[in-house]
Amino acid sequence: MQIAVDAMGGDHAPGEIVRGAVEAARERIADIILVGDQRVLEPELNPLHPPANIDIVHTEQVVAMDEQPALALRRKRDASIMVATRLVKEGRAAAVVSAGSTGAQMAAALLVLGRSGKIQRPAIATLIPTLKGPKLLLDAGANVDCRPEHLLEFAMMGNVYAARVMGIREPRVGLLNIGTEACKGNEQTLGAFNMLKAANLNFIGNIEGRDIFTGDTDVIVCDGFVGNVLLKFGEGMAQALFTMIAGEVKKTLRAKIGAALVLPALRALKKQVDYTEYGGAPLLGVQGVSIICHGSSNARAIKNAIKVAVRCVEEGLVTGLGQLPGVNTGEEVIQCRPC
Amino acid sequence: MQIAVDAMGGDHAPGEIVRGAVEAARERIADIILVGDQRVLEPELNPLHPPANIDIVHTEQVVAMDEQPALALRRKRDASIMVATRLVKEGRAAAVVSAGSTGAQMAAALLVLGRSGKIQRPAIATLIPTLKGPKLLLDAGANVDCRPEHLLEFAMMGNVYAARVMGIREPRVGLLNIGTEACKGNEQTLGAFNMLKAANLNFIGNIEGRDIFTGDTDVIVCDGFVGNVLLKFGEGMAQALFTMIAGEVKKTLRAKIGAALVLPALRALKKQVDYTEYGGAPLLGVQGVSIICHGSSNARAIKNAIKVAVRCVEEGLVTGLGQLPGVNTGEEVIQCRPC
Repeated sequence: MQIAVDAMGGDHAPGEIVRGAVEAARERIADIILVGDQRVLEPELNPLHPPANIDIVHTEQVVAMDEQPALALRRKRDASIMVATRLVKEGRAAAVVSAGSTGAQMAAALLVLGRSGKIQRPAIATLIPTLKGPKLLLDAGANVDCRPEHLLEFAMMGNVYAARVMGIREPRVGLLNIGTEACKGNEQTLGAFNMLKAANLNFIGNIEGRDIFTGDTDVIVCDGFVGNVLLKFGEGMAQALFTMIAGEVKKTLRAKIGAALVLPALRALKKQVDYTEYGGAPLLGVQGVSIICHGSSNARAIKNAIKVAVRCVEEGLVTGLGQLPGVNTGEEVIQCRPC
Repeated sequence: MQIAVDAMGGDHAPGEIVRGAVEAARERIADIILVGDQRVLEPELNPLHPPANIDIVHTEQVVAMDEQPALALRRKRDASIMVATRLVKEGRAAAVVSAGSTGAQMAAALLVLGRSGKIQRPAIATLIPTLKGPKLLLDAGANVDCRPEHLLEFAMMGNVYAARVMGIREPRVGLLNIGTEACKGNEQTLGAFNMLKAANLNFIGNIEGRDIFTGDTDVIVCDGFVGNVLLKFGEGMAQALFTMIAGEVKKTLRAKIGAALVLPALRALKKQVDYTEYGGAPLLGVQGVSIICHGSSNARAIKNAIKVAVRCVEEGLVTGLGQLPGVNTGEEVIQCRPC
């Protein structure tokens, strides 16, 4: 299986991207097409003595992180993310993986691949580490203004991903809300609650922010604004906690010795909560597999994202999403009653 | 100064509430009026040999956590939270403190005390531990559906609180968003950005979820849905991380010994991030001081909330909020341009 990797996108591009791609190719996870500037990529690639199943497709244009995505893609038809996505459209690659501008990757996917089946709002699904392993949260930032029916769509897509790619039977779907009671929420979640209840899903009701970490919900549904703020909040908090721990244990000799002994355990924990372990976040609802990686992805994250891409292709994710029934929009919004 | 404490509200009521109130009275933080059922409170109070500056105001009615607040208050005019809030209205207490139903406390404050000055939407302000000490976030859950002008109002109220009660000169106000650029956000934050920029505030622009923990923003503004989900997410995450750490260090003898040595440092950290240290969250924008405590508050949290209440009264919080100019609503929403 050929996977197209945008070699120019990400804080540590192209070095870490190339390294991750080479590892994936060497471990026969997939055959790799690196998309980017040949003159930049070859000096990175050659010292690694790359295996035969890794190729370069040359393009000089790149979308910078601070560019307005739609505008950038209009100006740069041959930006690396565009070329990589076109390889999927043309059937030359089975999936695209990028750590570049998320906005540009989404725009390229919509422009080149188009929406899947009756999906109105493609969404980014991401994994959150919990006490019972990683769980799926969506939307992680593709749609910032959502109506209730969009949340229903996210739930349906997340359900397909959890069942097909994560192998969960009857995934438990929860609506992220400010309280567990059916009467709690804003207009959006009150509306979505009723729709989710009526849908053909294993809907377990509202869940609160703290319930995410117990791991009893497989698919956590929220709008892209809430999801994005939450994920970055979690990232900042984990970092701050580790910084605080490091600061505290430096204060006494006793704690310093203790910390040295505890270190392997903390490393194991860090691995558990490290996003690089989970690879990328799939963009669900487009006519192809597009895996969005964290901007600061290292080689390990890229390799794992390639694994995710392969699994999405093998499990027929796009076919599954394409078969989803459409959701009602506009006038047909089900009215909710306060309890 | 007399502080009214709702002795019947909270997961650990009345025991922990009474203990916290007695400590506050004994330490002369304030004189205390415990509001609740005398027959329940006296057996809690007497074994503690309470000082003379603690009294009971008897009432038998209580709002349960699962009751619909507005409905419950209509039925129970003498619920402990109502009686305690009336003591403030009547000038017999300077502030009210409760760990009971947040909805009931807000409803009682609105009903009995009323809105302050030109404030349209009272909001709950809460402290978040960061690498540079606790910072203020609002709204933490009072308003789930907000227009941009409501976020402006939250910013203005948070600014008054940070300046008066926290003693911060020119508090740095940040808008919680999905990106730092002015063009990022949903309709609500795009609109609020322009309003905050035009307002008489030290507005530092958009901040992302992860930026909260660097501690470079004194007042973090978001709607009550986002704020509430975020706080509970943070609570769940901290708990999950400590559980994971505990689980990891139990796995080897080496780690167990290390953990024992590190323990005092971890305790110091836990104290840093422990909400009970910060006491309660003030409800800003009502005609009186009403401090909302976490449902699971212990004696320490109650005592610290009483401290917060005293400080709010001493620093003239209500007067400060009452002097705020009103915000424009409806038609006058400033249009924002995509960048």
